[in-house]
Amino acid sequence: MLIFTNRVQDSLALIIEELKPSAIFIIADSNTFNNCLPLLQTGNPALEQAKVITVNHGDENKSLESLAHIWRKLTENAATRSALVINLGGGMVTDLGGFAASTFKRGVHFVNVPTTLLAAVDASVGGKTGINFEGLKNQVGVFRQADNVIISTIFFKTLPHGEMLSGYAEMLKHGLLDSEQMFYKLLEPTALDPQYDPEHLLRLVQESVKVKEKVVEEDPTEKGPRKALNLGHTVGHAFEEMAMERHNPVSHGFAVASGLVVEMVLANILEGFPSRHIDALARFVRENYTPYPVTCKDYPRLLELMSHDKKNITPEAINFALLKDIGQVRLDCTATADQIQEALDIYRDLMGL
Amino acid sequence: MLIFTNRVQDSLALIIEELKPSAIFIIADSNTFNNCLPLLQTGNPALEQAKVITVNHGDENKSLESLAHIWRKLTENAATRSALVINLGGGMVTDLGGFAASTFKRGVHFVNVPTTLLAAVDASVGGKTGINFEGLKNQVGVFRQADNVIISTIFFKTLPHGEMLSGYAEMLKHGLLDSEQMFYKLLEPTALDPQYDPEHLLRLVQESVKVKEKVVEEDPTEKGPRKALNLGHTVGHAFEEMAMERHNPVSHGFAVASGLVVEMVLANILEGFPSRHIDALARFVRENYTPYPVTCKDYPRLLELMSHDKKNITPEAINFALLKDIGQVRLDCTATADQIQEALDIYRDLMGL
Repeated sequence: MLIFTNRVQDSLALIIEELKPSAIFIIADSNTFNNCLPLLQTGNPALEQAKVITVNHGDENKSLESLAHIWRKLTENAATRSALVINLGGGMVTDLGGFAASTFKRGVHFVNVPTTLLAAVDASVGGKTGINFEGLKNQVGVFRQADNVIISTIFFKTLPHGEMLSGYAEMLKHGLLDSEQMFYKLLEPTALDPQYDPEHLLRLVQESVKVKEKVVEEDPTEKGPRKALNLGHTVGHAFEEMAMERHNPVSHGFAVASGLVVEMVLANILEGFPSRHIDALARFVRENYTPYPVTCKDYPRLLELMSHDKKNITPEAINFALLKDIGQVRLDCTATADQIQEALDIYRDLMGL
Repeated sequence: MLIFTNRVQDSLALIIEELKPSAIFIIADSNTFNNCLPLLQTGNPALEQAKVITVNHGDENKSLESLAHIWRKLTENAATRSALVINLGGGMVTDLGGFAASTFKRGVHFVNVPTTLLAAVDASVGGKTGINFEGLKNQVGVFRQADNVIISTIFFKTLPHGEMLSGYAEMLKHGLLDSEQMFYKLLEPTALDPQYDPEHLLRLVQESVKVKEKVVEEDPTEKGPRKALNLGHTVGHAFEEMAMERHNPVSHGFAVASGLVVEMVLANILEGFPSRHIDALARFVRENYTPYPVTCKDYPRLLELMSHDKKNITPEAINFALLKDIGQVRLDCTATADQIQEALDIYRDLMGL
């Protein structure tokens, strides 16, 4: 169950009262241990007594070593099948901790408490858990819903602005998948104001997560409809990987924001997606993000990277989830190299690149 | 789906035709690689081309190292989410291979082909997968049903007689849980004849597995009714662990056969289980198994081991699944130390110990 609240302690206390776990474990990384754990524990006796298991922060620690470390700590502390694991962190912690909890004694209770906007609107919801393996992202894991996800904006005060923007790109995606009303509300700049009102942002986040929740309910194990959530990501992943190859990495959210613009242009070419929405989105991305810099020399490599994207079944045709209009998604659209190059040309014009 | 057939190749060919996997992997241990793999592959082109992943045999290799080895081999061979894994072996291979397949890319297809009687009637069916960790059995894993389990008796020709008896103890348990008719049919010695008719044995196995299947369907994640399958195992595990402590290990099935006798006596004391069934069972165990040797000096340690059994929630009262009659199980019965000691006394009498 998803719980949207800024009274995180009260909410956790209720869950604990109902679940009566045999023991409580909190998984945190080195960042959330310092910045977020006090907000959770202070004044809450049940959580002050919980055993805290820490892992090093950063995606490179979403590893088999960290997984075995958590299993070992749970074993040393004689955790039983009715133990509760609380994952306190960004997507790295909720993915890793969720996988550890889903497999320890074939599954103990777990609750996600996302501490970044990106984790709140994306990773912590939807039941994907896992680790990286042999250099491949999320190579092993399971689909398993958390018992509860407590979504709050109180942890975001200490987040760098770039991190907020990263999460916001996924919210823009959800807006495009849902309705004009939601999308245009997101283009009002208030939510990204560093002096944001946590309650107002929480309501925006709630609307946004509901979009993802609806898609996941239809297709928990990603057999079809869930591909809609890939909007902006086929191009976004290609930007991310190209940046990585050039040793100048770009954050996931920035790549997705630019990827959304390219894919809306492509949707216009293939499905007649209205250009006024493209103009509005492009302006927002230009003003708030650093658009991913592309020249026509990059096109061949970008096309290669798109065709290797894991959600592409056939390597010949490049697969996209495209919009006919806001809220109207078409899965499994295929685009030719020419069409994608045309979209990239228009993206560069729109972004002034 | 459970498939009972001695035409294993035909059955697998049908599954492959329907599933159209992107690639096929066979997981075997060093024993089944030699004894069973040829029966599967020879003359079947799809399986001759399959990639075989081998692990060392023996429960000590149901480990994190073996799991990572399988994940690595699947990664090296670029297995996708529509790959098929065939687990060819005893419970060690179906548990380990099932866990690897359930977690690789958050789950690929897998089919179990049990090659021991014990795996056919127990481990390969019911969706429990996992590995041992930090010296604890099945400490991590998931509940996930195989796409198919192909149950056949053709692989048993090369099994030592003791291995057959081990599996047969679980069949006796299923008989007691089901009906007088099934139980007394099992006491006819034909099935244990080394010159057994594979088709006759297959029908006995089929009846037996259906008992487990029914219980598992009611309770896939072991929250309640599935405890019925623990019949004979609270005492059986204590015998097994005591034997291990004394560096004179006894096979699981032999411990369970003796454990069933003790628990039927206890059921007689607490629930009035008819003594004529006890006499019949005791005679069969005496004639076919080596009853586990017990003296009254062993009682205190045995009681301790029973109270530590993982399915005992409270350490004070010892929990049993007990029968009121054949086919009538009572879960969560508790017995006192005196009652258990009385049952052990009678067991020793019945066994001539």
